[in-house]
Amino acid sequence: MLDVYHQRVESELSRRLAERKGIDANLHQAMHYSLMNGGKRLRPTLVYLANDLLGGQPEQADSAACALECVHSYSLVHDDLPAMDNDELRRGKPTCHIQFNEATAILTGDALLTWAFELLSQPSETLAPATQLQMVHDLARCSGDLGMVDGQAFDLGSEGKRLSLEQLNNMHAAKTGELIRASLRLGALASGNATDADLAALDRYAQKIGLAFQIQDDILDIESTTEQLGKPQGSDEERDKATYPALVGLAQSKRWLHQLHQEAIEALEPFGSRNRSLIALADFIIARNH
Amino acid sequence: MLDVYHQRVESELSRRLAERKGIDANLHQAMHYSLMNGGKRLRPTLVYLANDLLGGQPEQADSAACALECVHSYSLVHDDLPAMDNDELRRGKPTCHIQFNEATAILTGDALLTWAFELLSQPSETLAPATQLQMVHDLARCSGDLGMVDGQAFDLGSEGKRLSLEQLNNMHAAKTGELIRASLRLGALASGNATDADLAALDRYAQKIGLAFQIQDDILDIESTTEQLGKPQGSDEERDKATYPALVGLAQSKRWLHQLHQEAIEALEPFGSRNRSLIALADFIIARNH
Repeated sequence: MLDVYHQRVESELSRRLAERKGIDANLHQAMHYSLMNGGKRLRPTLVYLANDLLGGQPEQADSAACALECVHSYSLVHDDLPAMDNDELRRGKPTCHIQFNEATAILTGDALLTWAFELLSQPSETLAPATQLQMVHDLARCSGDLGMVDGQAFDLGSEGKRLSLEQLNNMHAAKTGELIRASLRLGALASGNATDADLAALDRYAQKIGLAFQIQDDILDIESTTEQLGKPQGSDEERDKATYPALVGLAQSKRWLHQLHQEAIEALEPFGSRNRSLIALADFIIARNH
Repeated sequence: MLDVYHQRVESELSRRLAERKGIDANLHQAMHYSLMNGGKRLRPTLVYLANDLLGGQPEQADSAACALECVHSYSLVHDDLPAMDNDELRRGKPTCHIQFNEATAILTGDALLTWAFELLSQPSETLAPATQLQMVHDLARCSGDLGMVDGQAFDLGSEGKRLSLEQLNNMHAAKTGELIRASLRLGALASGNATDADLAALDRYAQKIGLAFQIQDDILDIESTTEQLGKPQGSDEERDKATYPALVGLAQSKRWLHQLHQEAIEALEPFGSRNRSLIALADFIIARNH
């Protein structure tokens, strides 16, 4: 199931990128390089799963799936810049500003972010304009200064400071949690059948798997290999980055990860037996090794 | 008339920024610093004028006016970055990355761009969802890799190269023209009364004043003072930048400016006597000294 959606968004992104060949060649290459980079496609998969959960057809969710990957991808390109995290490798390949240059990486991020909103607002035969508009609004709120960008700004301002557990939770909730939440909300909305109660249940699930994802990231940085990670193992510790293992220890981090896993599954109870794929997704987040 | 709209968008931006005080303080300050910077507010003014031209009330156009200024402002913040134009002054004040730092400037641009789409997609009592959706779509197309960002990418790739007149025109049409076009289109759409013919006439007008604006910019860089410009006079020549005076001479640039002025006014003929404010705006672009 997860593989099907992975392939689906790969092919959708690839097809839609090919349609934009008329633009500046360097910009097009950099957008392609940054988007088609072997990523996990977690956010598009969440879009499709939430859409399916509420009875939507995959084609209703294609634009949202692509839009979410565009926003995720833009955030990585900008995050990797020298003035930000100064990362030279991403999934084992040179980051955008290394492969191209810094100016191109800035513009590529800008283009991908803007494209996300173009994708969501395209005339649609299956979605009502009011639904599309709510998808635009949810994505903007979750990814901007009330969401993801706020988390990145806080992260930036907390360099070298010792964070409390609450601050670390809040930072990750904004920095990665909000986009995971947006993925599930947009997928649900794309079905045309989402109630407020559905969205609230998905918000709770999002909160749990978002935090679990981050804790697992921190654990992997300690326990995985550079090859599996596609980036240098142990880099968090080297940078003195605030992580869950650093704050509460590795054993407690693992206990908490499993508790969040359970709570994520509980959040899906309102959906009855239709919830299997989202449970599998929660399992995947815990079990992944990269 | 222009003053009224200038004050209106200042107050709208200021009020809406104040509502976002809960975010990261540094990010909020940088957003405020970049938006409330004494700019000309040309794009919001165009939004209001096009809205008024088609019988809309100003309050229908407030969100679009703010969104256009957010996109313009983000593009300046990113354009000024060391990896891009490396500008330290903007309207006589330190640019965002000088006043704060590079990472903050990157995030501030990202936040302003995202906020633009949040503003346009807010639930509205006066605009139909389908109209709001078209506004989102038009802004995304005009400001992304099919519009403004494409122009910036071309500009980047043409450094040190000799451009033809056609290339220079195309670059400016994308880099500044598309956002001016978006301003007029969104203002017209916000009225709820825009026909395809209206939008086409405004597109023609946009094309003329967009190019006129750029030619006047190039002329001012030669003929104005550093004080009036708020940035070093003569910087285009010093950087060996492709400009109209450099390509066709100062006298020909001025002749062309006046021809575009005439053509802009002709493009407004379908609107009959309602077109006075947009004529005044074209006059302002030609007469401005900063």
